[in-house]
Amino acid sequence: MSAQLQNDLYLRALMREPVERTPVWVMRQAGRYLPEYLRVRKQAGDFMTLCSTPELACEVTLQPLERFKLDAAILFSDILTIPDAMGLGLHFVAGEGPKFSNPITSRADVDNLPNIDAGTDLRYVMDAVSVIRKELNGRVPLIGFSGSPWTLATYMVEGGGTKDFAKVKGMMFSDPDAMHALLNKNAVAVTNYLNAQVQAGAQSLMIFDTWGGVLSPDDYRQFSLHYMQQIVDGLTREADGRRVPVVLFTKNGGRWLPDMADTGCDGLGVDWTMDLADARALVNDRVALQGNLDPSTLYASPERIRAEVKKVLDSYGSGPGHVFNLGHGIHQFVNPDHLGVMVDAVREFSAS
Amino acid sequence: MSAQLQNDLYLRALMREPVERTPVWVMRQAGRYLPEYLRVRKQAGDFMTLCSTPELACEVTLQPLERFKLDAAILFSDILTIPDAMGLGLHFVAGEGPKFSNPITSRADVDNLPNIDAGTDLRYVMDAVSVIRKELNGRVPLIGFSGSPWTLATYMVEGGGTKDFAKVKGMMFSDPDAMHALLNKNAVAVTNYLNAQVQAGAQSLMIFDTWGGVLSPDDYRQFSLHYMQQIVDGLTREADGRRVPVVLFTKNGGRWLPDMADTGCDGLGVDWTMDLADARALVNDRVALQGNLDPSTLYASPERIRAEVKKVLDSYGSGPGHVFNLGHGIHQFVNPDHLGVMVDAVREFSAS
Repeated sequence: MSAQLQNDLYLRALMREPVERTPVWVMRQAGRYLPEYLRVRKQAGDFMTLCSTPELACEVTLQPLERFKLDAAILFSDILTIPDAMGLGLHFVAGEGPKFSNPITSRADVDNLPNIDAGTDLRYVMDAVSVIRKELNGRVPLIGFSGSPWTLATYMVEGGGTKDFAKVKGMMFSDPDAMHALLNKNAVAVTNYLNAQVQAGAQSLMIFDTWGGVLSPDDYRQFSLHYMQQIVDGLTREADGRRVPVVLFTKNGGRWLPDMADTGCDGLGVDWTMDLADARALVNDRVALQGNLDPSTLYASPERIRAEVKKVLDSYGSGPGHVFNLGHGIHQFVNPDHLGVMVDAVREFSAS
Repeated sequence: MSAQLQNDLYLRALMREPVERTPVWVMRQAGRYLPEYLRVRKQAGDFMTLCSTPELACEVTLQPLERFKLDAAILFSDILTIPDAMGLGLHFVAGEGPKFSNPITSRADVDNLPNIDAGTDLRYVMDAVSVIRKELNGRVPLIGFSGSPWTLATYMVEGGGTKDFAKVKGMMFSDPDAMHALLNKNAVAVTNYLNAQVQAGAQSLMIFDTWGGVLSPDDYRQFSLHYMQQIVDGLTREADGRRVPVVLFTKNGGRWLPDMADTGCDGLGVDWTMDLADARALVNDRVALQGNLDPSTLYASPERIRAEVKKVLDSYGSGPGHVFNLGHGIHQFVNPDHLGVMVDAVREFSAS
């Protein structure tokens, strides 16, 4: 029924199967550094319209694949769709990022959060997944994603971005039961959301734990990792007769890679603050690793970019299980041609 | 000439000498969580007037010592006094933090930066140190401090705070020679500035590398640690016949503690994202460790705060070389009484 997958390097690398070369994709590859993205975003009027209009979301998802020889597509969406569907009122303030009109401030607010059914309450996301999968027509696999329960909670309690996490950690320390109740609701919703994405056509999943790294080791295990474990346990791991690999990514979470590998996920994202050789030694080849070039490297000269790509590939070393990526999302002011240099260098240097 | 030091626990702990109990102070202990601080700040009119008026800087430096049984005072100042003295035009925008009117945008800007002489160009800081030292009258030692060359550079190139460090890393990757020239100028200035503080009366020094943790391991060594090493090599390490201990603190730099210890510093600050037991194993007791309670812990109940203090003390374990502190600055919305609970718990649980 679905078109045969023509390039499954990404899925095979995540399963730690041998590959002809290291697959590569880039976090936020559909984004503001691309003039064609800015055009569609302008046409959409605002960011949420872009996310919630399946044809537009599909168009921007595919844009980077037209320019660069990438080995995966990732659903274009926002990480805060779930709390928005829960009624928190997501909106974007120019220059300030996401905001919630109705942040969580008490245990009562947590208890009043509705259980969402992603298939209906976030229908627009599932429609986007279906359209993208159809338009991809088997070229490369489609990655679905969600924010982690803890990362969603930071925005839900802070009401937006934050520098010191005072409100969300304030709740965590002053009312840990309320925080656990919130995280459990989020975990249930994320599980439901990711499974709906697989049902709609996602062939791989990624959980972005952008803010797990601001926690102490004990608190990370209790308030972030525990709920990612709950999600991994509840995910559909097969579709179309094929494994749906799951990747966890905690930014600034390098020290905790062994614990993350214990969840039973297939791969781990690694940011650029740790060498892949060290990361690989930590997880002892139990899972695949995805990363980890510093996104700012793309400000360098083409020669320097090529050298840094080689360094990352060499750091991972030989054997299967590496997906090349930046260590975080691509910056908006990067020259797109520099991403092309990076992608081509990965293909050239990793070909066996 | 100077009053005899009545409490030298802090200095002895940093030298890894035996102490009767673990000394404690808190980053940003003179700050907005104290109503008496807010009163003086209001009286000063603006933040820079507060920093640059020695009597007012002295008053707020001493305020937390009146309330809490702290074992050290830290000079009240800003980490951006050096670039301000270089002519970058430091000012503060309400709700946005520090800004520079004349940020560094090119190699030419770097070359045009004047060499400063801290004793004259930052006379107000040295006057504050002298006044504070006199008013302390030997109660506890006085800590002088500076931002690290890399941390200063981030603000100097970004023109203020930043989330993605795109400009400063852009310069680092696109024109590494310009970045090295800037960092070298900063290192020379910081060395001069810290030595002037010692001459004025500082009895211990701390270098805050708030943003070294956003670098890759290689870049950290080249662009941050290298210049902290240069500073440590150039510091006056003795005053009044006594060692002036130096502490380095790279936030999110736990992985690099062994390299930091190699600089020949006396102690290392540790944030809360690493257990002190692991940190201590990494540095193999070569240096003292300062930290590392999550500042948000002070939002918890007194009982919980006491339990978390005990956990930090137990994590460090027995033997000398621990200075208790938060893992970063105290938050502005913390109830001051909760800091009192923390300080008293450190005294109670660590008494031998």
